[in-house]
Amino acid sequence: MMRKEWTANEIDLIAQQSESGFRFLQQLNSDERAKLMHLIADEIEVLDEALIEVAEQETALALGRLQGEKARTVNQWRRYANAVKTGLYSEARLDVSEDGQMDLRKYNKGLGPVVVFGASNFPFAFSTAGGDTASAIGAGCSVIVKAHPGHVYTSQMMAEKIHRALEKYGAPKDVFTHVIGDSFELGQRLVQHPLIKAVAFTGSFKGGKALFDLGQTRPDPIPVFAEMGSVNPVFALPDFMTQHAETFAKQYVSSLVLGTGQFCTNPGILIALAGQDLQLFKEGLKSELSEIPPTKMLHAGILANFQQLATEVTQQEGVQLIAKGKGTDQTELAQAAIYETSSTYFLNNPKLAEEVFGPFGLIVSCSNKQELLTVLNAFGGQLTITFSATEQDIESQQELFQLAQEKCGRLLFQGMPTGVEVQYAIQHGGPFPATTDTRFTSVGPDAVKRFLRPVSFQNWPNTFLPDELKNENPLQIDRLVNQQWSKNKIIK
Amino acid sequence: MMRKEWTANEIDLIAQQSESGFRFLQQLNSDERAKLMHLIADEIEVLDEALIEVAEQETALALGRLQGEKARTVNQWRRYANAVKTGLYSEARLDVSEDGQMDLRKYNKGLGPVVVFGASNFPFAFSTAGGDTASAIGAGCSVIVKAHPGHVYTSQMMAEKIHRALEKYGAPKDVFTHVIGDSFELGQRLVQHPLIKAVAFTGSFKGGKALFDLGQTRPDPIPVFAEMGSVNPVFALPDFMTQHAETFAKQYVSSLVLGTGQFCTNPGILIALAGQDLQLFKEGLKSELSEIPPTKMLHAGILANFQQLATEVTQQEGVQLIAKGKGTDQTELAQAAIYETSSTYFLNNPKLAEEVFGPFGLIVSCSNKQELLTVLNAFGGQLTITFSATEQDIESQQELFQLAQEKCGRLLFQGMPTGVEVQYAIQHGGPFPATTDTRFTSVGPDAVKRFLRPVSFQNWPNTFLPDELKNENPLQIDRLVNQQWSKNKIIK
Repeated sequence: MMRKEWTANEIDLIAQQSESGFRFLQQLNSDERAKLMHLIADEIEVLDEALIEVAEQETALALGRLQGEKARTVNQWRRYANAVKTGLYSEARLDVSEDGQMDLRKYNKGLGPVVVFGASNFPFAFSTAGGDTASAIGAGCSVIVKAHPGHVYTSQMMAEKIHRALEKYGAPKDVFTHVIGDSFELGQRLVQHPLIKAVAFTGSFKGGKALFDLGQTRPDPIPVFAEMGSVNPVFALPDFMTQHAETFAKQYVSSLVLGTGQFCTNPGILIALAGQDLQLFKEGLKSELSEIPPTKMLHAGILANFQQLATEVTQQEGVQLIAKGKGTDQTELAQAAIYETSSTYFLNNPKLAEEVFGPFGLIVSCSNKQELLTVLNAFGGQLTITFSATEQDIESQQELFQLAQEKCGRLLFQGMPTGVEVQYAIQHGGPFPATTDTRFTSVGPDAVKRFLRPVSFQNWPNTFLPDELKNENPLQIDRLVNQQWSKNKIIK
Repeated sequence: MMRKEWTANEIDLIAQQSESGFRFLQQLNSDERAKLMHLIADEIEVLDEALIEVAEQETALALGRLQGEKARTVNQWRRYANAVKTGLYSEARLDVSEDGQMDLRKYNKGLGPVVVFGASNFPFAFSTAGGDTASAIGAGCSVIVKAHPGHVYTSQMMAEKIHRALEKYGAPKDVFTHVIGDSFELGQRLVQHPLIKAVAFTGSFKGGKALFDLGQTRPDPIPVFAEMGSVNPVFALPDFMTQHAETFAKQYVSSLVLGTGQFCTNPGILIALAGQDLQLFKEGLKSELSEIPPTKMLHAGILANFQQLATEVTQQEGVQLIAKGKGTDQTELAQAAIYETSSTYFLNNPKLAEEVFGPFGLIVSCSNKQELLTVLNAFGGQLTITFSATEQDIESQQELFQLAQEKCGRLLFQGMPTGVEVQYAIQHGGPFPATTDTRFTSVGPDAVKRFLRPVSFQNWPNTFLPDELKNENPLQIDRLVNQQWSKNKIIK
């Protein structure tokens, strides 16, 4: 039996075990944590046809996509491990005066047990053994994953891989706990448990905001990082449109329908000036989209949700159909579509700015440049904003560009927002409601920072200091010593 | 007229002006912000007898203390400015592939307008021109300070200094706004205003938690960093007590009564094993404290609060008087006192773990080492925990030491927690309820981090990138380029 309900006592036991797993991790320095993470990566990397098969069945994602995502997941663990090993996130700072009057040393340690809620759309990279779990372990936090109900068996198999790696390392199994259950109460009780110190979530606004509120109304509030998607506005600016309207239509459509539109960074809304170029672009969309076959979504619930939201948007006043993907008799497939509205309708109807998770685009046509700014101003926080623009466009739209920086985590010049590189320089986050804390990212090694807190040691005996702060600098990490970066030993 | 009420329209105007001040700061790179901060330091540094006189009248703090605090405030602006200038907080990361396929660059920018509520006990260092204001400006955020009602004129004079510096720099006055008013609604409306992007507070649990809740229940939650004080437990361990019981009594008393006990890091609760050494220590306390004259508190409200809380604690069951400072006929002076209780009474009465802001100490006597751990476990988050211990004590109390790391921001070996160095390695923060976000500090240059968020630029034209990310590296800061630290230019 995979799915079950949980009593308060059972949840309490899980939290206590996770707390004991956390205490084990606290004994590991950053080098050791990196070693453990590479062991987890090794386990995931092993060729495992059964895993891919189960994931294919549970998610309806294509084989190639799943293989690629699995490789990305391995890479993610290794990247984060290497970043942790450099000591970058330990942020060791030592202020040690020569006269012995001052000896103050600070480093970052893990917050405590973290509860992770994975995403439906990335069964590997942002689920059980995904980025949130990797960054929490990298920070030295134990993890409790509540399995995503959309891919419970895949989740279970990934959890086994992590447990195998823990065993190989010689770590207790409680470092990582996998919990399966359908009820909202299970998640609620975990988030509210006093031993839980942080929460990470990827999914819908409704789910993320509910968890955030639970975390903030605890007697002792805890950090809840929820990545809740966005509509990722694309501003198609005039000079660019004059030059590229037709080729751009092709690029936009392929980004919009990628993975049946099931990406947080799907370019859901495109804003452009009305006129001949936009007309050309729309004709391009029509011909491009007419070639796109209907495809399967992650599961029936997501498809139903997509169809309902799309219908709600298209039934609003002032919304016209522009282009449709190929039709189908099969009711379980999603048909791509692009609609259009004017800035006036858009600005007067917040419904039109809501995310439709799936292959659905809305064009907002503006009659002048000032309206572009007004439309941008109406958006809440976004993961990305794309400028389909030339340098001349940016030059003449400085105010739009400046405002966009306040509205999103990642700004693109040309290109499309789908495709999120696992790099130091990525920002996968953004102002609310894209996430619940714009100061952090959930992709890239910097995601580790969400689960760290600084602790200072004053006049502390060297023997009992964490390795990161010892006189000898045994980990050979860069440390900020008396305001200078150094790998040197401290001579006392 | 210094004090007034504010209409919603007036508050809206203030927020809009501050937003325009923020837009100005966004045009400044980290070098320019550092320059502005040094100009502010210059203005504060100017000899100003009238200022010190007004502060003396408003706060009842001694002349020497105020002069020292003013110097500390100048130093704080300069330290933070120098840290900002190094680019440390810009955290520039560039991932630029040679084949031109990837060009991703990230840096940290300011969150937006920040509302600051200063502390009563530091009219310079943690108030109008204090650490929160300095770190917000360092992050590129405009600031609205709600003047502390305990020192409104001092606050006004400090605000004028900041405005003078802004004028010298050529910055609009809206970069810094000073608001005077008594009502809770004023603070509430500021925190809830949509243009406000973060809040910093230093003061009581009640005040800080109310602002935190306001920030988290906005339609768009914002970061609220509240530092709410703590009781700063001191664990006096057996081997240390055997060696130092008497001299330690002297040290403890002088820390307890420093500044009439009006420090966030005042060592309010001391935990020790019952027995002969503790007896000796208590006799030392009695003789030391009997020499301590009564002193004035910041204002009548704080004195009344101190007397009420102290009386509440001393009236609990199982609490005995150990030592008292010199008495007085003058009702406006605070008399220091130290009481004692046993771990049994302490563990059964949460009232005994509450902060009494003032020169008030409580000894918790334990009958064995296990009880020390149980008492530590009962504490909520603390700014500091002090081990009055020898290395042998730490060796034999590893579990206590490990648990203490989960409970506080700064751990001391010997010494006293009063005295907070403005250094990179300081952590002035801690788990709730010491602060509302244990991941940040409100003292030391790292305080800047509270007000920053990362933004990525993908394939962005060099001309329009912020200076921190330009190919030329015009600010000559350390950047993480393709996973390596470098000051080099990017050749494209």
